[in-house]
Amino acid sequence: MARQRSHTAGIFITLEGTEGSGKSTQAARLAQALRAEGHAVLLTREPGGTPAAEQLRAVLLKNNSESLAAETEAFVILAARRQHVDHVIAPALQQGAIVICDRFVDSTLAYQGYARGLNLKTLRTMNRWATGDLAPDLTLLFDLPVTTGLRRRQRDTAGQNRLDRETKRFHENVRAGFLQLARKEPRRIKPVNAARLPDRIANDVRTLVFEWLEKRLPQAGQRK
Amino acid sequence: MARQRSHTAGIFITLEGTEGSGKSTQAARLAQALRAEGHAVLLTREPGGTPAAEQLRAVLLKNNSESLAAETEAFVILAARRQHVDHVIAPALQQGAIVICDRFVDSTLAYQGYARGLNLKTLRTMNRWATGDLAPDLTLLFDLPVTTGLRRRQRDTAGQNRLDRETKRFHENVRAGFLQLARKEPRRIKPVNAARLPDRIANDVRTLVFEWLEKRLPQAGQRK
Repeated sequence: MARQRSHTAGIFITLEGTEGSGKSTQAARLAQALRAEGHAVLLTREPGGTPAAEQLRAVLLKNNSESLAAETEAFVILAARRQHVDHVIAPALQQGAIVICDRFVDSTLAYQGYARGLNLKTLRTMNRWATGDLAPDLTLLFDLPVTTGLRRRQRDTAGQNRLDRETKRFHENVRAGFLQLARKEPRRIKPVNAARLPDRIANDVRTLVFEWLEKRLPQAGQRK
Repeated sequence: MARQRSHTAGIFITLEGTEGSGKSTQAARLAQALRAEGHAVLLTREPGGTPAAEQLRAVLLKNNSESLAAETEAFVILAARRQHVDHVIAPALQQGAIVICDRFVDSTLAYQGYARGLNLKTLRTMNRWATGDLAPDLTLLFDLPVTTGLRRRQRDTAGQNRLDRETKRFHENVRAGFLQLARKEPRRIKPVNAARLPDRIANDVRTLVFEWLEKRLPQAGQRK
């Protein structure tokens, strides 16, 4: 299964970060900014995106009575990722779109690997199965102190999930994991200071992505 | 996650085989025979066995419109296995029961590995994640020519599933995979000629299992 996916036509941007980092808001704003520049943009998020992947998402969210092992959680997320890649992400890239995905392979390494302690090498192998070797071109890591993020989430009681009930230590490990991944792949993963006001973050993200696109697509300025 | 499960109290028997091998019928008959001898028996089957595992089973069965990648199929089966082991199989073994499970780790190697071509080494690693290193004590492999099995299944149109629509070649690869596994682990995996009449198969299975139990539990004869 070492098949390499080709998606030269499109651009694949993933957004990663801990709870309360505001990345979902920023994903929507980035999509809007790119569309305003004339790009075809698909904004999507994990887990989900296809009927089977949504069924799998429900397994993660709707089993308060049955505890899920860390391994189960990993398998379910990876299964959903594969369906999402096959039926949503890869087709959009092949049509030349910019795909913005809220969480992807790095979340699995940070949450299930660094925080839950599952073997990173095995998770990387499984990530390749889940993506068919489709790697993000650019990853924005929304980084902020764990206490700041959790305080933001606490205000949003309706949106709280299983992860909000984890210990502070767990979230510290997730954050440290993400930062470790960014140090290992500095060309792909760009940290963004997410402790500031949304407008300032959005501004930084826009600058970062537009400059990255200009280097990548010398003709991008002529699209309008 | 190299924790080794201890289940010295119980005995874990798995039944494996291709489509139409009659193993589900034989599982029920074996359970009955063991109960008649005074053993506490839990009869169960994969995938399923817990609310989350049943939700996962539904993903495999109810997505005719959305094709599932071989990798997705593997991840979903492994997720369901982990929940089944944690919440059903391991607790029963700890209470000293004989657990009979219709399909387990070897089906993943035969179907997703030998037949669908996914990497066997990775599948073995993932099987360990899915079982928490719980291995069957005894595995009965119900073996018969593929054409015989498929003919049996064709009579049962209501019970047909996705696998029945696979090519004959696919089922030949599954069978060859199972036989290969049996050659590698002759102490654990015992082939049973499943091309015969159900009564004769049941008789062989009973003899095989009772003799195996006598060696394993010298006190078994005194249980009645």
